[in-house]
Amino acid sequence: MTGTPLADGQLPPFENDYHPAWLPTAAFAPVGCRRLALAAEDPHDDAVLRTLAAELAEACATHGGAVVAPHDDPDLLLRLATGRLDGYRVVRRHGRVVVTAATPTALLHGWFHVVRTGEAAFSAPDGSPAEDTDERHAPSSDLRMLDHWDNVDVHPVMGQVERGYAGGSIFYDDGVVRADLSRVTAYARLLAAIGIDRVCLNNVNVHAREARLLTADLPDVARLAAALRPYGVRAHLAVSFAAPMTLGGPATSDPLDPDVRAWWRDAADRVWSAVPDFGGFVVKADSEGQLGPFAYGRDHADGANLLAEAVAPHGGLVHWRAFVYDHTQDWRDRSTDRARAAHDHFAPLDGRFAPNVIVQVKHGPLDFQTREAVSPVLAAMPRTRLALELQVTQEYTGQQQHVCYLGPWWSEILRFRPWGEAPGPDGGAPVTVADAASGRGPGGLGGGFAAVSNVGDDRFWTGHPLAQANLYAYGRLTWDPELDATAVLDEWISLTFPACSPRLRAALHAIMDDSWRTYERYTAPLGVGFMVSPLRAHYGPDVDGYEYSKWGTYHFADRDGVGVDRTRATGTGYTGQYPAPWRDVYESLGTCPDELLLFFHHVPYSHVLHSGSTVIQHIYDTHFAGVEEVEAMAARWEEVVDEVPDGVAARVRERLAEQRRSAVEWRDQVNTYFFRKSGVPDARGRTIY
Amino acid sequence: MTGTPLADGQLPPFENDYHPAWLPTAAFAPVGCRRLALAAEDPHDDAVLRTLAAELAEACATHGGAVVAPHDDPDLLLRLATGRLDGYRVVRRHGRVVVTAATPTALLHGWFHVVRTGEAAFSAPDGSPAEDTDERHAPSSDLRMLDHWDNVDVHPVMGQVERGYAGGSIFYDDGVVRADLSRVTAYARLLAAIGIDRVCLNNVNVHAREARLLTADLPDVARLAAALRPYGVRAHLAVSFAAPMTLGGPATSDPLDPDVRAWWRDAADRVWSAVPDFGGFVVKADSEGQLGPFAYGRDHADGANLLAEAVAPHGGLVHWRAFVYDHTQDWRDRSTDRARAAHDHFAPLDGRFAPNVIVQVKHGPLDFQTREAVSPVLAAMPRTRLALELQVTQEYTGQQQHVCYLGPWWSEILRFRPWGEAPGPDGGAPVTVADAASGRGPGGLGGGFAAVSNVGDDRFWTGHPLAQANLYAYGRLTWDPELDATAVLDEWISLTFPACSPRLRAALHAIMDDSWRTYERYTAPLGVGFMVSPLRAHYGPDVDGYEYSKWGTYHFADRDGVGVDRTRATGTGYTGQYPAPWRDVYESLGTCPDELLLFFHHVPYSHVLHSGSTVIQHIYDTHFAGVEEVEAMAARWEEVVDEVPDGVAARVRERLAEQRRSAVEWRDQVNTYFFRKSGVPDARGRTIY
Repeated sequence: MTGTPLADGQLPPFENDYHPAWLPTAAFAPVGCRRLALAAEDPHDDAVLRTLAAELAEACATHGGAVVAPHDDPDLLLRLATGRLDGYRVVRRHGRVVVTAATPTALLHGWFHVVRTGEAAFSAPDGSPAEDTDERHAPSSDLRMLDHWDNVDVHPVMGQVERGYAGGSIFYDDGVVRADLSRVTAYARLLAAIGIDRVCLNNVNVHAREARLLTADLPDVARLAAALRPYGVRAHLAVSFAAPMTLGGPATSDPLDPDVRAWWRDAADRVWSAVPDFGGFVVKADSEGQLGPFAYGRDHADGANLLAEAVAPHGGLVHWRAFVYDHTQDWRDRSTDRARAAHDHFAPLDGRFAPNVIVQVKHGPLDFQTREAVSPVLAAMPRTRLALELQVTQEYTGQQQHVCYLGPWWSEILRFRPWGEAPGPDGGAPVTVADAASGRGPGGLGGGFAAVSNVGDDRFWTGHPLAQANLYAYGRLTWDPELDATAVLDEWISLTFPACSPRLRAALHAIMDDSWRTYERYTAPLGVGFMVSPLRAHYGPDVDGYEYSKWGTYHFADRDGVGVDRTRATGTGYTGQYPAPWRDVYESLGTCPDELLLFFHHVPYSHVLHSGSTVIQHIYDTHFAGVEEVEAMAARWEEVVDEVPDGVAARVRERLAEQRRSAVEWRDQVNTYFFRKSGVPDARGRTIY
Repeated sequence: MTGTPLADGQLPPFENDYHPAWLPTAAFAPVGCRRLALAAEDPHDDAVLRTLAAELAEACATHGGAVVAPHDDPDLLLRLATGRLDGYRVVRRHGRVVVTAATPTALLHGWFHVVRTGEAAFSAPDGSPAEDTDERHAPSSDLRMLDHWDNVDVHPVMGQVERGYAGGSIFYDDGVVRADLSRVTAYARLLAAIGIDRVCLNNVNVHAREARLLTADLPDVARLAAALRPYGVRAHLAVSFAAPMTLGGPATSDPLDPDVRAWWRDAADRVWSAVPDFGGFVVKADSEGQLGPFAYGRDHADGANLLAEAVAPHGGLVHWRAFVYDHTQDWRDRSTDRARAAHDHFAPLDGRFAPNVIVQVKHGPLDFQTREAVSPVLAAMPRTRLALELQVTQEYTGQQQHVCYLGPWWSEILRFRPWGEAPGPDGGAPVTVADAASGRGPGGLGGGFAAVSNVGDDRFWTGHPLAQANLYAYGRLTWDPELDATAVLDEWISLTFPACSPRLRAALHAIMDDSWRTYERYTAPLGVGFMVSPLRAHYGPDVDGYEYSKWGTYHFADRDGVGVDRTRATGTGYTGQYPAPWRDVYESLGTCPDELLLFFHHVPYSHVLHSGSTVIQHIYDTHFAGVEEVEAMAARWEEVVDEVPDGVAARVRERLAEQRRSAVEWRDQVNTYFFRKSGVPDARGRTIY
């Protein structure tokens, strides 16, 4: 390895000491054995086109095909066209494929589409040419981004990567940007293969060291951007609202102060001067200790627009997070409800944000719990560009020690209809969350998608090899929210385990398809959330872990019942933040879905669910079932380990053992806790300690 | 400040940027204004005698007296005599005082006795000569030691001082022994004034950096010993049982291995060669991750005797801690009881320890809780030298944020009669814990006293200025366990606040006398213990904080009752570790003291205490009362702040505010927790959240 960045058109070392993920050499065999061509005026003028040319050459060199001239009857022609075209077009005639796109990056995405499709792109199972087709593949939104909560310095509590469960950062190593960034380019390649084209390079909790990326360390940012650029991935930076003060500017960060505005304009000018294709800024303000506009009596529109004004001349974006709440709450004050906070703060500001501001909204009102209601903010700001924020890193879903395939959960969220069955704009189909984030909601404005990455410098990128599927699914489902999560998983299996036997494929589906619901079963019940250990950074059970804390999320379990009353009638009124029909569906015990019951209602342990079970028996049953399911996963893995590479087999085995241990811990603590409180014995007489 | 050690006979700078504690200049006025003499053959040959000479000179120079020849009618003559005499003798005739001792250190202790006594040493309140007297002041035991849990390196979790709440270490600063050790000498002076003459220099959890003190860094140990020596304080070291392996010796630490034995002998030889008056080793083995003899199938007698053999030629001691228990317990296994562990491990070894081994036993069976039963180990090993270990640092008693004067608690422990009213050896008075530790128990062997220090580099030494009283009381009460804790506090007040008004004295007594019981009231009830926050290093409430943890201490609270059944009849059998009468007193609900009820029994919330209250109402009442008492403390302090120096006034005020906040947090969490579980309302209708 050298410290030299890759030369343009030089590919990163794909077969390396880290796992190839969904791009093993074998995945390129169907294209690489054919005649490939690239048609573009002056392909050497563009970094992505040079990459594409190198990809074709590499695939052919490896698998026996040939790069030919566009007019020389290629099996696959990649063609850069002019004109307006979102995504890419795939035309197949007599088994020959032409992919057309209007930008090099879209053409690159089209190339990986063919790679993903594999042999089926060209031929039917019987060897005859595949059926003719003419498909247009446009992404749901042109903003699909990954946020890295990576620190440059190792943070004394949070480490190199905040909420990272896959080793250190691929960008930074203990205080400096890595000398060798070839792995960053390999990462960009993985992202390009799933359609992700924007990455935020640093933690939204911007500490002193990381703040300097905006100024003194711009050359480092330029190096990182250069490492991402060959695969069409643009760099964004998380910046501190306090930056003017901490980086030698004015002694205030007041967004209406002329000196502050000038400072940010200058800062933005310097950033784009160093990185001409820079994407923009990501901001966490007035949140968990980060400074924000509240300090100056301003609101979040003032704050966001300050930065928007600075980046606008460069076509830059501001991703402004709606994750604002009081994190110094008093548990004794039941009138405070953290779930209400984002809506309370942001809904009144609708229409006041500049056009290049994207308000980034966590999918639920709390913080990436295993199960949450969809955030009402997503339906409350038609005149604002809203991005849906997901969490690929498994902070609350097993921290990549547990198998927890999140695709089905994200599908539920993306397909959720915030206005129920009401017709969409112009009388069309009911609007989904994915529609709203993609500009097809009531206001016609979209902010796309963002998510916290689960990648680190771990050999398998994601700690748990099977957690790669979450990163894969995030890219695929945000490109096309209509995709079926299980089908996406199947794609991932085909790519990641080349020559996968039906037996292995069936085992992986059995282990992963329902793993999110399995995780839900053995952890916090019925949507109540946050029964996690503050001591172990949210890993493992602690039923009362946040019950008396300033962070403000409670279950209010007593000897009679459990759950948070968020109704308008008798609770915090949070249900009133939803439009119809959800404001009423959630308000009523008769219609509130079981899986969110305790998020919306405080009920007796004897309350009978729609499922027919009581709350207490449901808790016992799901916790016993969850552990049994984990045991079945582990057994299933043992049946197929001989079919997977040794390293993957061993790592997954080790993690399944930990998952079982942890699931038992969850089961026993949660069951014991509620048995001690309720006094109700398990109807099936199983052991509760 | 310079890096040069103090020259022999040069006093440390007493009035410095740190507080003088109980030795302010004014405390020396009664002696310093008189004619003083020191009688010893060749006083310049001994470091302590040189110190004593300097003390006399300094006192006289400051307060107008004179150092005179012994035959020149001094008001105070300090006389080194030959012969066997423990401690010192004080003879007063016609207002002239002669202090006689057999060793320089005992004579120094005698000097400070006169300083502590003040004007009353010489004259009656009416100015006439004080009554003639002839007193012998011998310490209860010749071993009175302070253990410092100081790390050389700042530990990533535990910091510079493990369980330290008074800033950094006075010995070390971030990886090195301090260049300027004058404050260490000032500390030794404070210790000499309360009769402490041994200090262990480092944390019993011996990490890699600290292990080197035993070998490569012996010159540093010698420097520290030299800084303590002028005041007659001897240095001990905590050593790792793994030392042979980690410090370049044999590849085993097996205590029966000849090479290991040779390695330890060599190591001891080098230590005593560097520090001829070195005291010995302190060892934590097979405990909380520290290696011990169990790793080799050996027992703790084998382990302790290994080190004892090595240090015996030098007259050295081995303090071997009995704090051995399984810290990876399964909370589901109710047959495991951490309280049993020390007795289970050590009692069977009685009689097998070498004569220079002292088994150091924590006062209670758990870990320095606010209230614990006295450890049954103290009554179980008549053929072993046992030391009683106390904790001056307030790990579980408010961490020096809370006023908590521990003198009364230690008095209870020291005066506890492990064999009840049974006559002592030779038919004498019933034996107390202090007797047993002092060699006046059944076997006639004593190991003295040890305690974890509460001192750091904080301006006030102990963080909370009033926590100085705990250090003071530890010295005084272990010198003479018959002293009354309130009288000792009064001594401390007189010295620390010279010219203390009756109003200030009364206020300090009102705030401090009962502060330990106040702390007990608003924290864990009825002896149950360990309801502390693991997240905040044992500070603040977390009722379930250890309920489901591997550390093994539980309250088993459910909707019906609370407490740990440690009876022989139905519980863990721990009561059987006590001799009569306690094995029966604790076994029976009818005789078990209220304050230990939940430590020994699991009872319904409706159980009626000897006090007449129910358990649940007792919890509510004490928690409300505790907060009210803290509020009264703060109000009382405000009445007298004008009489104390600004720095002390402000620091105490700030800590009282935090104590109030914390006490309210304790009250509300504990009350809410038990209200939610029991459903029993407060009989007095106060607010429970």
